[in-house]
Amino acid sequence: MLREILIKDVPEIKIHGRTTDCLEPLTLFWTASGFECNVSGTEFAVEVEVTYDTFEPWFSYTVNGDWIGRQMLPKGRYWVPLFRGMNAESIKNVHFYKDLQAMSDDGNSYIHIHALKSDGSFYPVEEKALKLEFIGDSITSGEGLFGAKKEEDWIPMFFSALRDYAYLTAKELDAQYRVFSQSGWGVYNTWDNNLRGALPKYYRQICSLMFSEKNERLGGNREHDFKSWQPDFVIVNLGTNDASSFEQPEWVDEKTGERHKMRKEPDGSYCKEDILCLQKAVKDFLHTLRECNPNAKIIWCYGMLGINLQLELCGAVSEYVSETGDRNVSYLQLPNTDDSNVGSRSHPGYLCHKQAAEVLSKYIRTLM
Amino acid sequence: MLREILIKDVPEIKIHGRTTDCLEPLTLFWTASGFECNVSGTEFAVEVEVTYDTFEPWFSYTVNGDWIGRQMLPKGRYWVPLFRGMNAESIKNVHFYKDLQAMSDDGNSYIHIHALKSDGSFYPVEEKALKLEFIGDSITSGEGLFGAKKEEDWIPMFFSALRDYAYLTAKELDAQYRVFSQSGWGVYNTWDNNLRGALPKYYRQICSLMFSEKNERLGGNREHDFKSWQPDFVIVNLGTNDASSFEQPEWVDEKTGERHKMRKEPDGSYCKEDILCLQKAVKDFLHTLRECNPNAKIIWCYGMLGINLQLELCGAVSEYVSETGDRNVSYLQLPNTDDSNVGSRSHPGYLCHKQAAEVLSKYIRTLM
Amino acid sequence: MLREILIKDVPEIKIHGRTTDCLEPLTLFWTASGFECNVSGTEFAVEVEVTYDTFEPWFSYTVNGDWIGRQMLPKGRYWVPLFRGMNAESIKNVHFYKDLQAMSDDGNSYIHIHALKSDGSFYPVEEKALKLEFIGDSITSGEGLFGAKKEEDWIPMFFSALRDYAYLTAKELDAQYRVFSQSGWGVYNTWDNNLRGALPKYYRQICSLMFSEKNERLGGNREHDFKSWQPDFVIVNLGTNDASSFEQPEWVDEKTGERHKMRKEPDGSYCKEDILCLQKAVKDFLHTLRECNPNAKIIWCYGMLGINLQLELCGAVSEYVSETGDRNVSYLQLPNTDDSNVGSRSHPGYLCHKQAAEVLSKYIRTLM
Amino acid sequence: MLREILIKDVPEIKIHGRTTDCLEPLTLFWTASGFECNVSGTEFAVEVEVTYDTFEPWFSYTVNGDWIGRQMLPKGRYWVPLFRGMNAESIKNVHFYKDLQAMSDDGNSYIHIHALKSDGSFYPVEEKALKLEFIGDSITSGEGLFGAKKEEDWIPMFFSALRDYAYLTAKELDAQYRVFSQSGWGVYNTWDNNLRGALPKYYRQICSLMFSEKNERLGGNREHDFKSWQPDFVIVNLGTNDASSFEQPEWVDEKTGERHKMRKEPDGSYCKEDILCLQKAVKDFLHTLRECNPNAKIIWCYGMLGINLQLELCGAVSEYVSETGDRNVSYLQLPNTDDSNVGSRSHPGYLCHKQAAEVLSKYIRTLM
Repeated sequence: MLREILIKDVPEIKIHGRTTDCLEPLTLFWTASGFECNVSGTEFAVEVEVTYDTFEPWFSYTVNGDWIGRQMLPKGRYWVPLFRGMNAESIKNVHFYKDLQAMSDDGNSYIHIHALKSDGSFYPVEEKALKLEFIGDSITSGEGLFGAKKEEDWIPMFFSALRDYAYLTAKELDAQYRVFSQSGWGVYNTWDNNLRGALPKYYRQICSLMFSEKNERLGGNREHDFKSWQPDFVIVNLGTNDASSFEQPEWVDEKTGERHKMRKEPDGSYCKEDILCLQKAVKDFLHTLRECNPNAKIIWCYGMLGINLQLELCGAVSEYVSETGDRNVSYLQLPNTDDSNVGSRSHPGYLCHKQAAEVLSKYIRTLM
Repeated sequence: MLREILIKDVPEIKIHGRTTDCLEPLTLFWTASGFECNVSGTEFAVEVEVTYDTFEPWFSYTVNGDWIGRQMLPKGRYWVPLFRGMNAESIKNVHFYKDLQAMSDDGNSYIHIHALKSDGSFYPVEEKALKLEFIGDSITSGEGLFGAKKEEDWIPMFFSALRDYAYLTAKELDAQYRVFSQSGWGVYNTWDNNLRGALPKYYRQICSLMFSEKNERLGGNREHDFKSWQPDFVIVNLGTNDASSFEQPEWVDEKTGERHKMRKEPDGSYCKEDILCLQKAVKDFLHTLRECNPNAKIIWCYGMLGINLQLELCGAVSEYVSETGDRNVSYLQLPNTDDSNVGSRSHPGYLCHKQAAEVLSKYIRTLM
Repeated sequence: MLREILIKDVPEIKIHGRTTDCLEPLTLFWTASGFECNVSGTEFAVEVEVTYDTFEPWFSYTVNGDWIGRQMLPKGRYWVPLFRGMNAESIKNVHFYKDLQAMSDDGNSYIHIHALKSDGSFYPVEEKALKLEFIGDSITSGEGLFGAKKEEDWIPMFFSALRDYAYLTAKELDAQYRVFSQSGWGVYNTWDNNLRGALPKYYRQICSLMFSEKNERLGGNREHDFKSWQPDFVIVNLGTNDASSFEQPEWVDEKTGERHKMRKEPDGSYCKEDILCLQKAVKDFLHTLRECNPNAKIIWCYGMLGINLQLELCGAVSEYVSETGDRNVSYLQLPNTDDSNVGSRSHPGYLCHKQAAEVLSKYIRTLM
Repeated sequence: MLREILIKDVPEIKIHGRTTDCLEPLTLFWTASGFECNVSGTEFAVEVEVTYDTFEPWFSYTVNGDWIGRQMLPKGRYWVPLFRGMNAESIKNVHFYKDLQAMSDDGNSYIHIHALKSDGSFYPVEEKALKLEFIGDSITSGEGLFGAKKEEDWIPMFFSALRDYAYLTAKELDAQYRVFSQSGWGVYNTWDNNLRGALPKYYRQICSLMFSEKNERLGGNREHDFKSWQPDFVIVNLGTNDASSFEQPEWVDEKTGERHKMRKEPDGSYCKEDILCLQKAVKDFLHTLRECNPNAKIIWCYGMLGINLQLELCGAVSEYVSETGDRNVSYLQLPNTDDSNVGSRSHPGYLCHKQAAEVLSKYIRTLM
């Protein structure tokens, strides 16, 4: 007998990703946030409520760990079927993933989860022994993992949580994981020199980079309770957009007239002063990460779209370690994108993410 | 400006797969049947009408040749969004695939296509130079290409058109293709000895293995007009279920009392008499195929789930060629499934299908 | 203390490949024939005696199963060092392989093994549980496995025992193996229509295709004692040169005026009469193999250089099985050569042999 | 007609690797040093003179770029055949490689090349557009690229020039290259804390790490004329043994009583003072390299046996660049060794070297 049940009445459900305590409904902010449940019965569906102004959310889901479907979510509140016709007795693990990052450019783009529908019963989801947090930019948001190579539109359809190195690394290590990422942003500024897009500024809140009243209402701007979920490893994959900012024109805030530009010297080298700002941002972020995650091993990753800033980034991490004596911080180069592994929008493709996940998961194993 | 348009009013649309002439609506019968269009505009959706009693259809679609989404289709008539937010001027190729075979066990399982919605214009779809027809069983229906290895439910969710060797071969060769397949069936009988499940019996009709009045009404039982679409290559991948029938108990028709069994001798060898029936079926089917497709090269493939019947099948093909002098018939062994490439339901997985597509497409190239 | 010891005085030595009982010296005829020993000590060398008129032999060797060296063997009797500087106590497995086929075109091309030199002791070589015999043409002789793609010289340098599918299959299955092969020859005639080059004609002797008085003296023409070494699997890889003979001009024996040609019909098809001769040769050879190896499983392989004769060969094997009821005979298609895996002299390269070994070893496992 | 010719009389010959001007005979010091020539004729041999006390040299050679043979070289002066039976007219490229590093532990281990024997003529060897110099330790000396995984003997047999990342990178980029390397040594000290084994100390001489009167006589201790061969890229792969020295006991010079040890703090971290010495050595070496190779791009590589010192090495390189403004220096992490790609002696195997060559050659391409 099919019955509908509010998710607040399903204590066995497991919530993934940074979010508030609210379950009426549950709000999904970040890439790869979602829910997971173990459920018997022949049929299963989820009631979503979707809002957006510009960028519609997508979702993917797995059944028993294998990717089953992916679809665009139109506006509105409605039921989405996830499986039917299955053996009634067997317990199925279903994992619903937001396939889109928190969209800082659309303060109204959310998936809410209201209820589940099933003819089975719910069972607890086993806790994974290992917890990972991934912090990054478009690469970590899975941009370019869908779509033909020639695609250039910056749209949700070409983002995905389920082909990226974060998902693949967590799968390889049998870990649960969270993603905190924003396309185009960096550790110090955005790809086009906007200082507002320094991801570290937003790290202490649940999801404060959705600039809207709605986000305030939903609780995204509240302080995040780090004690509630302490990762064993924090993987930072930032610097790619900072490298790009040196090549881009000055950013001008049309309202305030504020301007900013990462400069190059006449001989083509990076301006030392600007590099020092960048390196300070790296070190400051490491201090923040350590404060929020006292026991985590922190790995600064870089390289999936070139290593132009490798010496500068690794040098800054090296200085942080030297200055603090914090031995649980390291630096890892990840495989680069080339013709053989590129995806859409000139971003790393699935093959590149697979290669990165292999390098990263092997490295994490050496630290465990 | 978004506008809705009946597909009969989109002459630029390209229909894939065996179906009737009817476009009000268009009925999709077979795996990988569907439609393709080139369309500009920012947004695109399709109006489907879905019916079924037991086995719900699924669909997948590509944009510019890259897989974008896959979802279950609930009963009813409704719009499904395929893309939005794209560049208005660029022309997008959209291809909608039925992800489920014609379900002989559910005479009410259909996808109908009524209309399209777009703010762009339609443009002709270029005809591919090469045409392929794939005839087979569950392997060709893409069974087991979704789902975890442990899955055992025989449900639509685990079938797919877009990971199978037919799709991959056509993509590699830049060909258009059709699939004519049925899970569990063979060239002579089903995996469990049912003589009704001999796929050749249904080859001359559009889709006569959906046993229902509705199918009669929809025109599936009408004779297929082979002149309307002549493949350059016919790839037959049958025999796997016939091999299995020797290991299965006798089939009994509960209504008529009719019985049938492919027998083994006490020493474990195949009963010669039954093998002769099987080989006659192979040769008869080759005659049929040749009659319906006078100029096609016919390739009998086998081996993705073992080669138990290889000598018997290849011997029959050899006899046909020797008896007829038909030089355009050959035999090709495809890569086997093992632990490294298996999918769900003990069927070949994506890796095995990729390997098969590589062997097959290379072989086809040697014949071109 | 280094000491020289005649191999007849090393009972622990293991001889590989068809040869006579003579150990003073041991004569190596076939590809991959040689000796294997387990020996302690720091240093090890072998005394060879090498003769040839046109085609000099080469050898390769492994230490503890890993390929260490490969070199041309000039004429004469001399010592060849195989290792030095190793740990005195550890027991090293050393395997010496003739890297060249029995050269039917040079009745004087032999490697003889006289003695060993070591400062250690000899220990028994464990018998492998599985025995394989490979029968074939240039593919099985490892032609084209050395040398740049552009090489066209037909010389010993481009043959090798240690990269071919026979070696790789045996390694994968932990089997001992023998090779019986001749480049350019077939099951019925050579690539250029010479009936003398039908490999089955020579199967019952130790090595009767070296046409020389010396071979008579060395005992190569004596009947082979099949009871002395019964393979579990006989792998026949013949037919590739027979396919080629249909495309080549008539062969004329200048001395006797004898002529022969595998013919094609005006429409390009194979002449039926000639195909029947070929098929009879296949069936006759299977009878011979069964007589000589009563309990072996026989696998007829084909396809590493195209499958032009697949229907004809498989059809003949099928007929043999149908006529005899011999259930231990099967047919297996092997991976084809293409641009991605070709070696020198337009022959399958190492990658192709690796792919073939993978297919073959997996298939053998299903029969075990 | 075969004729012998002293190599001083073959102006077309091309010498590879750092050596003296002497051609009577030519002395080979380093891994991958040797000669290359383009020669017609059917047959070709080389006259070597080999000396050693403990560690015998080996060589490998290619014909037309493909690896043909590898063998141990016993003491003495003798001819080694390289090819025979080839087409007389075609011009063959033959490249002879020393397969063993300059052995600092055996001041008598040399290959000398006296003469060539051929029935053809010599032709100039085209100059490659790109020049690479590789500086490293056992990894760059190709240690562990031959031999079974279980091998533990430190002997020449398990070293090779022809499977290592230097050879493979040069091949991929169509470059000529030189190797300057020593197993067990580092940028600051050896794996076991010996300060004498700091490779930079020997960089300015031809080959001054062979500690013998013979080396003096042969000219190895003379200053190297850097102008004679300027690489486009200098690849330094040092640091792996320095990392190891922190884990090893103190080194004591039995003669002088001198002692040295890279220390760890009680909490397991590296002693800061010792790290500063190491980092100074890195920076000093970069200054030396820049002085000797004013226009070369310098890439510091690391990671094929773990990245324990990554922050420290990369930090030092970063400081050098920051202090000098030298923009042509960068840092690259190479793929790590694990169970899947390990060779003998717990060193990177062929697969790991292939992966490293792929990463390195792609990176070099981005700098070209």
